[in-house]
Amino acid sequence: MTINQKVNVSLMDKLGQQAKAAAIPMRSATSKQKNQALLLAASILRREHHDIITANQHDMKLGREKGLDKAMMDRLMLDEVRIEAMTQGLEQVAALPDPVGTINELVQQPSGIQLGKMRTPIGVIGMIYESRPNVTVDAAALCLKSGNAVILRGGSESIHSNRVLAACLRRALVDSGLAQDAVQLVDNTDRALVGDMLRASDYIDVIIPRGGRSLTERVANEARIPVIKHLDGICHVYVDAAADLAMASDIAVNAKTQRCGVCNALETLLVHEAVAESFLPQVIAALQAKGVEVRGCEKTNASCAVEAAQEEDWSTEYLALILSIRVVSSLEAAVEHINTYGSAHTDSIVSENYKAGQQFIRDVDSSSVMWNASTRFADGFEYGLGAEIGISTDRLHVRGPVGLEGLTTQKWVVFGHGEIRQ
Amino acid sequence: MTINQKVNVSLMDKLGQQAKAAAIPMRSATSKQKNQALLLAASILRREHHDIITANQHDMKLGREKGLDKAMMDRLMLDEVRIEAMTQGLEQVAALPDPVGTINELVQQPSGIQLGKMRTPIGVIGMIYESRPNVTVDAAALCLKSGNAVILRGGSESIHSNRVLAACLRRALVDSGLAQDAVQLVDNTDRALVGDMLRASDYIDVIIPRGGRSLTERVANEARIPVIKHLDGICHVYVDAAADLAMASDIAVNAKTQRCGVCNALETLLVHEAVAESFLPQVIAALQAKGVEVRGCEKTNASCAVEAAQEEDWSTEYLALILSIRVVSSLEAAVEHINTYGSAHTDSIVSENYKAGQQFIRDVDSSSVMWNASTRFADGFEYGLGAEIGISTDRLHVRGPVGLEGLTTQKWVVFGHGEIRQ
Repeated sequence: MTINQKVNVSLMDKLGQQAKAAAIPMRSATSKQKNQALLLAASILRREHHDIITANQHDMKLGREKGLDKAMMDRLMLDEVRIEAMTQGLEQVAALPDPVGTINELVQQPSGIQLGKMRTPIGVIGMIYESRPNVTVDAAALCLKSGNAVILRGGSESIHSNRVLAACLRRALVDSGLAQDAVQLVDNTDRALVGDMLRASDYIDVIIPRGGRSLTERVANEARIPVIKHLDGICHVYVDAAADLAMASDIAVNAKTQRCGVCNALETLLVHEAVAESFLPQVIAALQAKGVEVRGCEKTNASCAVEAAQEEDWSTEYLALILSIRVVSSLEAAVEHINTYGSAHTDSIVSENYKAGQQFIRDVDSSSVMWNASTRFADGFEYGLGAEIGISTDRLHVRGPVGLEGLTTQKWVVFGHGEIRQ
Repeated sequence: MTINQKVNVSLMDKLGQQAKAAAIPMRSATSKQKNQALLLAASILRREHHDIITANQHDMKLGREKGLDKAMMDRLMLDEVRIEAMTQGLEQVAALPDPVGTINELVQQPSGIQLGKMRTPIGVIGMIYESRPNVTVDAAALCLKSGNAVILRGGSESIHSNRVLAACLRRALVDSGLAQDAVQLVDNTDRALVGDMLRASDYIDVIIPRGGRSLTERVANEARIPVIKHLDGICHVYVDAAADLAMASDIAVNAKTQRCGVCNALETLLVHEAVAESFLPQVIAALQAKGVEVRGCEKTNASCAVEAAQEEDWSTEYLALILSIRVVSSLEAAVEHINTYGSAHTDSIVSENYKAGQQFIRDVDSSSVMWNASTRFADGFEYGLGAEIGISTDRLHVRGPVGLEGLTTQKWVVFGHGEIRQ
């Protein structure tokens, strides 16, 4: 172990111990206290907007010198409008119902005990994300509201912005009588610390990565802690033989073009061969009118000449105005295509046939499965979660859009009257 | 990579691919088909009991030669009575409600879409367990009923028994029109295969270890797949200042002595100092009358002379007729003791005071928290799950007793009417 590693390990130990200690009172914090802290944080952010922008301009200057690309610089940038959006986000989270303490149902068992499941905080959450300072505030707000302590490790290019933002959040915690270590920033840009964090199973209960594929894959491979991860969204719309074709066209165009750079956007359109000839010219014209480049299988090209799709198109997340189209011979073939090439994110059938819709809903193994709706609805806000910390493509604990509830777990609670076991 | 490793990797690849292929039709299998397979398996087990016992006697002979201890030999042994118990277990699982396909609630969102969560199988489950052939049947039954494919890796000493049992289960699957590879046995006792299984993240969605601490720890350390694990049960009963002392004594004696070798048995009794003097002589006499060796803190000894408890007693899972007792100055001190020394398994307060009970339920961070009930109730059958594949001491996905529902996950389902996103 080099001296540098030792320093890192002790920094993570220190942050971890502090987070664990803070998680205990956080578990018992009332909704009122947590909401107070969130609202106070909003007002501190508004008050300190000059300091935040100064720190951010420092990050932007270093980013320009480092040659960050335009998209990265845009994600890094904070201005008055974005600070106001962050503060409104804090206020919105304060207004959400608190999941902690909820018991949905208490059932009496034959022994006489009353049994239920109570929502509780997970404990300590480790957030690892790219250089987007707004994530510092958004993630901390959701972790705080759900009664967790959080250790934040944002991208190194945003360190100066994050430092000021984290200080604002911690001040709000203290002034609300809560433990300031419920929000901690890894105030060190050494990449080795990410590795330490991923192995800190004594302190951190779950790691949530937010960022591109390479970050998420590193986290998934190295983590010795459960991860709630978000990988690709290769989403499909399947137009069934019994589809309302006008509806199908509207849904396909919306799912592809309403916003194309997001994970719930459409990437591959599957069309039942019985309606290919009537549907394809109409939908392709509508897509091309919106500037979409269409790539089609051989049968697609038989109905309407477009660029030929290659095998790799079926497993590509374009995140751009490109769409692949495949004609399939049956609903079963559509399901098989989706379960083979898809990413188990969001897939939709368009059909007026009851049996077809039921079968699709049952057999497609994705975190969101839809019937006669645009894939773009797979979103925490559209699902009524009020907020979203990410979209999970994992199978356990939580799938799809993750809101406050996904940041909690459940414990069994038993209310007895002196029952003993016979 | 040695040749041996190559063979192992390809065996696990083969089992994994077959399991993944079988998981697809299993996902869509009807309750009727799954129940038919379970009932058929029961009748095949009854019919083949001679072959099962012959294979088991072979294992028993090798076990004796290997010098297995008495407890291990007992767990390994199958006779007519135990085979009948396994077949009845299969029939009981067939009679349980099928969680797959359940949607608890469908809520209309402002956009018009109807949104709910549907229970679906997890996919492929890897079971790793010790030489207890009944686990082969119990685990396969629960995985089958919940629509999963399972790869079973039992202890090497039970390989001949497991081979016959797995063959019976696979025959029942085929004869019910289901994929026989929904149940597969790792028919190879090479310990390296456990490592291969723990890294088979391409094929296995979750690993469930069932066995002692060393097995569970190996799995937790080596697995590159989510694990539902079961570690120690260091369970507490806290007798509050406002306890009904007769009830407290009954609960303490029951929790310690009704069955002492199990994870939900009491290990440490915490007593509020206000009732120590009146309560301790009475409960210690009752415990000693049941043959319990009592070890007490200094204050315990001030009320009633017993052996002195050492620091390590507080973190020991005795699994025997031994109990440690500590006098605490407050409810908060009791909670702190439990959250420090306990294993977050099952803890109970005895109190007639509303505020004290509420506070204990909220603040104790264990998978089961009880009020005026024996810790022995933390059990899948007592909780009405109908069956239990283990008791999870993990925080995510599922905590406490795990039944069929814990072997499923949820996907979002959206029923639309042509909605598109604005």
